Amino acid sequence: MAKEKKLVEAITSMETDFAQWYTDVCIKADLIGYTSVKGCMAIKPAGYAIWENIQHELDRRFKETGVQNVYMPMLIPENLLNKESELVNGFAPEVAWVTHGGSEKLQERLCIRPTSETLFCDFYSKDIQSHRDLPKVYNQWCSVLRWEKTTRPFLRSREFLWQEGHTAHATAEEAEERTVQMLNVYADFLQDVLAIPVIKGRKTDKEKFAGAKHTYTVEALMHDGKALQSGTSHNFDDIFAQAYDVTFTDKDNTLKYVHQTSWGMTTRVIGAMIMVHGDNSGLVLPPRIAPTQIMVIPIRQDAEGVMDKAVEVQTALKAAGIRAGLDDSAKSPGWKFSEQEMRGIPVRIELGPKDIEKGQAVLVRRDTREKTIVAIEEIPAKAAELLEAVQNDMFSRAKAHMESHTYDAADYETFKATINEKPGFVRAMWCGEKECEEQIKADTTATSRCIPFQQIKVGETCVCCGKPAKSMVYWGKAY
Amino acid sequence: MAKEKKLVEAITSMETDFAQWYTDVCIKADLIGYTSVKGCMAIKPAGYAIWENIQHELDRRFKETGVQNVYMPMLIPENLLNKESELVNGFAPEVAWVTHGGSEKLQERLCIRPTSETLFCDFYSKDIQSHRDLPKVYNQWCSVLRWEKTTRPFLRSREFLWQEGHTAHATAEEAEERTVQMLNVYADFLQDVLAIPVIKGRKTDKEKFAGAKHTYTVEALMHDGKALQSGTSHNFDDIFAQAYDVTFTDKDNTLKYVHQTSWGMTTRVIGAMIMVHGDNSGLVLPPRIAPTQIMVIPIRQDAEGVMDKAVEVQTALKAAGIRAGLDDSAKSPGWKFSEQEMRGIPVRIELGPKDIEKGQAVLVRRDTREKTIVAIEEIPAKAAELLEAVQNDMFSRAKAHMESHTYDAADYETFKATINEKPGFVRAMWCGEKECEEQIKADTTATSRCIPFQQIKVGETCVCCGKPAKSMVYWGKAY
Repeated sequence: MAKEKKLVEAITSMETDFAQWYTDVCIKADLIGYTSVKGCMAIKPAGYAIWENIQHELDRRFKETGVQNVYMPMLIPENLLNKESELVNGFAPEVAWVTHGGSEKLQERLCIRPTSETLFCDFYSKDIQSHRDLPKVYNQWCSVLRWEKTTRPFLRSREFLWQEGHTAHATAEEAEERTVQMLNVYADFLQDVLAIPVIKGRKTDKEKFAGAKHTYTVEALMHDGKALQSGTSHNFDDIFAQAYDVTFTDKDNTLKYVHQTSWGMTTRVIGAMIMVHGDNSGLVLPPRIAPTQIMVIPIRQDAEGVMDKAVEVQTALKAAGIRAGLDDSAKSPGWKFSEQEMRGIPVRIELGPKDIEKGQAVLVRRDTREKTIVAIEEIPAKAAELLEAVQNDMFSRAKAHMESHTYDAADYETFKATINEKPGFVRAMWCGEKECEEQIKADTTATSRCIPFQQIKVGETCVCCGKPAKSMVYWGKAY
Repeated sequence: MAKEKKLVEAITSMETDFAQWYTDVCIKADLIGYTSVKGCMAIKPAGYAIWENIQHELDRRFKETGVQNVYMPMLIPENLLNKESELVNGFAPEVAWVTHGGSEKLQERLCIRPTSETLFCDFYSKDIQSHRDLPKVYNQWCSVLRWEKTTRPFLRSREFLWQEGHTAHATAEEAEERTVQMLNVYADFLQDVLAIPVIKGRKTDKEKFAGAKHTYTVEALMHDGKALQSGTSHNFDDIFAQAYDVTFTDKDNTLKYVHQTSWGMTTRVIGAMIMVHGDNSGLVLPPRIAPTQIMVIPIRQDAEGVMDKAVEVQTALKAAGIRAGLDDSAKSPGWKFSEQEMRGIPVRIELGPKDIEKGQAVLVRRDTREKTIVAIEEIPAKAAELLEAVQNDMFSRAKAHMESHTYDAADYETFKATINEKPGFVRAMWCGEKECEEQIKADTTATSRCIPFQQIKVGETCVCCGKPAKSMVYWGKAY
């Protein structure tokens, strides 16, 4: 059968062209397909199964903190969008407008949600009366649309899948607490499940969400040294509540504005996972998120007893709670090895007549390609240990990469030289003025990624203007 | 605290005004809220939690049959929609059109998907080359939009949530097999989980899906005797494959068209559940779908030991795998009883100081209000039995209702009298001609619901025209 299919086609090496490597992996690992809808991709089974696992893990963590899921309409009437001026200015250039329903022109046009603060505010303004109705801790899983000019799979597409949490609280303190709490949920999820180390911090006013008082962010570093914003959590204070008249009668019988937050994570994190862990053989999936954690590959599967034993091993793995597959297709073992490597399956088990004779099998890690010979009856226990080791090692390697690609700069010449020559984060002091951010962007294309919660001093004065510094900032070129 | 809130407001009785009763239940049971977006509702936590359980149960059953989830764009370019003329004619009057992206007018307008056959065909035309790529058994969970003039919560709203399965097969036989298989999944789910008995059958050509060769349907009967189409499964043969050029090279090396199916179930089934099981105290949820299966309600919760015991009971129920809640709010027990009845929670447990003294608690079924006194240590076991009994009895009652509201008519006078005077299904013979369906609709507003798989003879000739009958049909007034 092998001749009927082309061999797994080589992907561009990441050293040659990282962007092309990334696109090749998305396609060759069968995560996405192109569509006739400009700027929108089809998420194929291998890609969507990853998203389902992300949803499952995140949703569980949300619910542990008291989040309830709801669903709001996908369309926003123009006058509703227009009530909060900063939000409008931020999103108006990139929304799609519905102007006709059936054959009739609409009296008021509606946009497809680019984000749903407006709809939640409208809903809360009707649904909240008293302090007893608070807090509201709602979330929805849905798709949103932003009319981007240039698009890339997962990283930037016109339509993307996400969750958006929208909460309302009686006090500013409680809203702030929820904002930080959800950022921590994102950080823990990224680190513990996707094995992606992150920097937690606050966005500068220039980079924060339109209409927010504060935006908190988790920033990750890709293999090519570029930063990727991987999740954000916004504290709106009572800014939206004032614009949308979301009030409640407090215990003291006075009418007050609620304090709101919103927070979101998108299919973009699949892109992050590809760019943090992938290699020149394709995708490398962290075991905790991999739809198939182990693939059993029989060698000489037509030989007597091989398929029976392979099924037996798969069954034992499944019984141990491991997501195990069995590739019994007519392809050659070599082809299957390449294919499972391309698809990023964390561990494969090679099992042939000679192995069976010796009562053993070969376990091969995707991340290091290290081989371990294991007695067949010990496979479930050893495989579980191996998956755990792969998960931990992937995180450690990514963390070491981020740390070795994080530089400090105390003066502007060092800053510019570092950011231009050494891909990665540059930590530098900042005066707090937007002008310096703009100057730095103009000089280097780098942007402030965040003011990290964990502050250290890497100088005395602003790296750009030399005035007294207010805080240390992570800078980087970003996706 | 009770005085601070109005008592649970009475809902319209279903005998007085069934439509108003239905709307009252949707609102008072906190399933939905109205929005500023015409024809679109907000699904609130209590409503969405039901949908999540529906998704979970259906998705599991889908995957057992080999279904893989994917995600296609929400927008369809006009030229893509226009390729299949029957589909266009069926859907064009009710799609919403996007004409502007940001500030620019689009060269080609795009509609928001009313259903995604076109997108899947377009995708399959690129993705399928060989018989080895078949079958494709894909599904997506998403929202769709149809520009309805009159809307009702869950039953008919402009935007609604659903799943849509789209499959491609090498042969007509395999496509037909999949069409029936998915109809059976729907029927089993409705009956086993939602406790809704259904009639399985085929739609007449007049009532089938635009562009389909056959549409199979599961039809349910609401409490008011009206029918509700609760799930459909379509066999497209190669009609769409020809329009969208979806071909494959078969084993004999010739190019052939694929054979396709699609099948969908929507948030509409939540409406069905309300209208089949609800009563004048509100919603009645089948235990297998209820987000909270049992609510523990402490009586005199400030008395010593009551809350501790209530928590102990809840914990024991959870440990037994039962979704148990505890209402420890400051409301009166009577208020809580009414509230949990309105929300349809299958069983409540009343637990006060006197009960605790006697080492017992009172279990109250929502469906019959029957009370059982149970020793506290036996609660988990007895509760599980009780939930099972509630589930089974709800199905039996709904089945008895459907059977007692199913009538036979051998001649047209009987048919018209029955359909106009006795809410329910009328079974009658049919010649197979569209003209008779149109005549019946004109005379009675009833439509053919389905040609049931289980055929029996209820006459010799077509009930309308008197010509030789081809099949027995279920007729009814429908939502």
